[in-house]
Amino acid sequence: MSKILNGIGASEGIAMAKAYSLAEPDLNFTETSIEGSASAEEVQKFRDSIHNTKVEITKIRNHAEKAVGPEHAAIFEAHLLVLDDPEFIGPIEEKVTGELRSAPQALVEVRDQFISTFENMENEYMKERAADIKDVSKRVLSHLLGRPLPDPASIDEAVIIIADDLTPSDTAQLDKRFVKGFVTNAGGRTSHSAIMARSLEIPAVVGTKEVTASAAGGGMVIVDGTVGDVIIGATAKEIKAYELKAENLEQERENLLELKGDETKTQDGVTVELAANIGTPDDVDGVLANGAEGIGLFRTEFLYMGRDTLPEEDEQYEAYKSVLEKMDDQPVVVRTIDIGGDKEVPALDMPKELNPFLGYRAVRLALGNKELFRTQLRALLRASVHGNLKIMFPMIATIQEFEEAKALLVECRDELKADKVDVKDDIEVGIMVEIPSAAILADEFAKVVDFFSIGTNDLIQYTFAADRMNENVSYLYQPGHPALLRLIDNVIKSAHAEDKWVGMCGEMAGDPEAVPLLIGLGLDEFSMSAGSVLKARRQIKNLKKTDMQHLAETALRSPDAETVNALIKEYTERI
Amino acid sequence: MSKILNGIGASEGIAMAKAYSLAEPDLNFTETSIEGSASAEEVQKFRDSIHNTKVEITKIRNHAEKAVGPEHAAIFEAHLLVLDDPEFIGPIEEKVTGELRSAPQALVEVRDQFISTFENMENEYMKERAADIKDVSKRVLSHLLGRPLPDPASIDEAVIIIADDLTPSDTAQLDKRFVKGFVTNAGGRTSHSAIMARSLEIPAVVGTKEVTASAAGGGMVIVDGTVGDVIIGATAKEIKAYELKAENLEQERENLLELKGDETKTQDGVTVELAANIGTPDDVDGVLANGAEGIGLFRTEFLYMGRDTLPEEDEQYEAYKSVLEKMDDQPVVVRTIDIGGDKEVPALDMPKELNPFLGYRAVRLALGNKELFRTQLRALLRASVHGNLKIMFPMIATIQEFEEAKALLVECRDELKADKVDVKDDIEVGIMVEIPSAAILADEFAKVVDFFSIGTNDLIQYTFAADRMNENVSYLYQPGHPALLRLIDNVIKSAHAEDKWVGMCGEMAGDPEAVPLLIGLGLDEFSMSAGSVLKARRQIKNLKKTDMQHLAETALRSPDAETVNALIKEYTERI
Repeated sequence: MSKILNGIGASEGIAMAKAYSLAEPDLNFTETSIEGSASAEEVQKFRDSIHNTKVEITKIRNHAEKAVGPEHAAIFEAHLLVLDDPEFIGPIEEKVTGELRSAPQALVEVRDQFISTFENMENEYMKERAADIKDVSKRVLSHLLGRPLPDPASIDEAVIIIADDLTPSDTAQLDKRFVKGFVTNAGGRTSHSAIMARSLEIPAVVGTKEVTASAAGGGMVIVDGTVGDVIIGATAKEIKAYELKAENLEQERENLLELKGDETKTQDGVTVELAANIGTPDDVDGVLANGAEGIGLFRTEFLYMGRDTLPEEDEQYEAYKSVLEKMDDQPVVVRTIDIGGDKEVPALDMPKELNPFLGYRAVRLALGNKELFRTQLRALLRASVHGNLKIMFPMIATIQEFEEAKALLVECRDELKADKVDVKDDIEVGIMVEIPSAAILADEFAKVVDFFSIGTNDLIQYTFAADRMNENVSYLYQPGHPALLRLIDNVIKSAHAEDKWVGMCGEMAGDPEAVPLLIGLGLDEFSMSAGSVLKARRQIKNLKKTDMQHLAETALRSPDAETVNALIKEYTERI
Repeated sequence: MSKILNGIGASEGIAMAKAYSLAEPDLNFTETSIEGSASAEEVQKFRDSIHNTKVEITKIRNHAEKAVGPEHAAIFEAHLLVLDDPEFIGPIEEKVTGELRSAPQALVEVRDQFISTFENMENEYMKERAADIKDVSKRVLSHLLGRPLPDPASIDEAVIIIADDLTPSDTAQLDKRFVKGFVTNAGGRTSHSAIMARSLEIPAVVGTKEVTASAAGGGMVIVDGTVGDVIIGATAKEIKAYELKAENLEQERENLLELKGDETKTQDGVTVELAANIGTPDDVDGVLANGAEGIGLFRTEFLYMGRDTLPEEDEQYEAYKSVLEKMDDQPVVVRTIDIGGDKEVPALDMPKELNPFLGYRAVRLALGNKELFRTQLRALLRASVHGNLKIMFPMIATIQEFEEAKALLVECRDELKADKVDVKDDIEVGIMVEIPSAAILADEFAKVVDFFSIGTNDLIQYTFAADRMNENVSYLYQPGHPALLRLIDNVIKSAHAEDKWVGMCGEMAGDPEAVPLLIGLGLDEFSMSAGSVLKARRQIKNLKKTDMQHLAETALRSPDAETVNALIKEYTERI
């Protein structure tokens, strides 16, 4: 009998593979002593666990060395030393043979003694040793109890990732060649896991609440990201049915591919630009394969995450250049560093915040770390000669912030020119509109920026004061709400009055329910997951802009999202 | 030689008293062993500490019993039992005499052994015992090291409270008769400590960064909340100077009192209402003493905090009734439960959130806990016959939320009437405007609510996506920013179009720099700390509304807060 979990379909498609759980196992245990006759066996069990832990740590160290360099691998050397230290290992074995403690109990008692002694010392080095002992003991304990710890970096076969939720640093560690799908307990359509899955074009289901409990065993899992179903322990019949379904999806996909080279033009002849969001240079292949007309959001955080050092100017330059070259003369909008919030960077000493989404992040952090920011801006400017680069600053709340960031960019450009480095002269510089103040004051901003790109995920979050990751308030994530539409309308009208263009790179831009409204409001550029581009093109080719304008006007005067959603349905079903 | 710290003057006035630090002392220590000859002395030191800890816990227990009832005091009985337990005390003394550990080291080692054993048991009772051992050991250790733990509930003489920051649960424990002033390391003008101090009308300085380090000794401290200075170890000359300054302030205060019975009317004859914010029924005396014309914000959180049980309907009824009666027929606007965010309530199992300010709080939590909400609404309805009650819901983002809350109120009213309980019929029901969506959609809200009260602290926080408690982004707290002014303008115009009134109960309403603008924008009611009311009245009596309207119109078309602040200066200096 299979078990079916229902969640939120976060990225379309069907995948089947072995489950790989990132959830940390429960390492609590109850027994505290053993029979005298069993002590030799218990010591052997302990020694086996030490051996297995060494093998495991050595494997992780080798991975780390290859992936992020030898300086990152040193920590594992320290861990291996602990496992060879007779002052740590001896007392544990003595407790088993002498005091008849079970091996887990003996390990925990000796561990706590060491940690307490080290932590009470003022020496920083000794405090770090306490952390080493903690880490290593956890790993030995997991072997003793037969409850393995997850190790995402070691995955080397096709898997479906099972997790409570995926953080950006989790996904940074995954080898994307082997990950066929995601299933999480938490999250919604706009959570990091969901966005990541769409960007990788792999099926994902989020918000299942209990997948880590149900699929902990590691058996075969089917993910249907189109409807949000997860099948655990599928029967032969179910597997057959899903294989058929996957084939149909493939057929539909091939039909869409016929639209690849087409313009995106409404029934009444209005052209808009369909672009894609990317998270790394590797994503460009998907952009080209799906016929996107540009990159509307190139997130640059991949350069900073999952590593202990900051990326140098040359490394960044190469990354930007490779994307610009591949995209030829199509526009590439690069968002400057957007770390902070839920995206931690080990190399920066970032303060722990009570409300990180209202905190020191993105351009705020960049303006407070000028050298970090200058390195990125210089790399971007140098890369500008290789394609059609546009630069935008995230989380702009006031005109001063934009002017300060722009001034730094100009300063970097002048420096480079003084050093005879080639830089393009006409790079457009814009802002993300994701904070209410920027949307409200768009008329003033439009006088100084070259373009706007509306980031709906954050804009909705702040406009309704609701963390989009928090399930208790997710009912307030309402892309159809007239308060949000009025902000978008204000941004577009203000921009057009100053002959500037407006894009949207939030989730809403690729949402088939929102596209008709956005056409009506006059949005110029839609940027979405590459996998959504062709569907959006098909949809827009069937719309008439004048009708959608009428829809938008009615929506702006509606009292709530329900009314707007009903209107959209009414207008689009008429077609 | 005195030491002077500069901070942010958060509540006016001058206070002098002994410092009382709420900062937890550092209980780390270095030494790990003693000479054999010293062991008897070390054991005696340990026993003395046990004795002193018992005396201290008994005192705290008696306080708790009186303040919150015997069920809250039970935990301290368990703590006393630990101190009499030979299985815990014995091994510690043995470690001192046998292994020549210092008493602190012996205590810590035995503590860790016990905790580790208890925490690994699955029994909930045993896990709680681990917590008891932790608490008690910390207290014994504080005596052993001569670094006393703070005990705010035991304060029984005049003090200046010194803390890193004050949380709502800290202030709930303080006996306000003895607290003459606050000084904190963290916080700004709108932090909880600052608001609390203004509501209590005691001087406060926040954001000093280092007061807990500088005033840890507990000596005499002078707080000048008007300019933001804190003097530690004042000289006789300084004391004299501050006494004189305090006298002058008193004189100025007496002059202001002459305006107590006056109407609040501009030069050109426009009347507005000046009301006060209160946090408990005790605050009403200050409201009346300062000639406020009503209560614009009655926060009801005091009923839920610093206790383990929820307040019953009758207890709430008595509290509301006492305020309504004291205020006679003057309006009293009660804000329904606004817990969550930074205000935790022990009796509710509130989820830990990543971004509590964007989380499950206020009306969101009330609508999810209907019985809790009904109890408050019933108590309010019953109290309505004793005065001029108005009810407002906090954190309303959508019209549905308002309608759901209002429907529950109507349901409670019908129930009470069916039971022949007297309820007023014409109670006005409004909302706090503190979320951008409500301000943007004010025209639609104005059709269904009776009034608006703008909560600027949160509205600014969300409009600029900046946690007002986070010092790294506090530069974005800009009450003069045109984006915020446009929201306020939209709320006032929308309300007046439907013949509804608009109040403001955020910090901005009492800010002398904002009052001219708010008069110009047409605000009807200003609600502030009672201590600011008379100053605001004097200021408004000197303003001409038509001039301020011109000021407001220019401000709304300005690009930034700097421009607006310069405008305000220019307009008000003309007077």
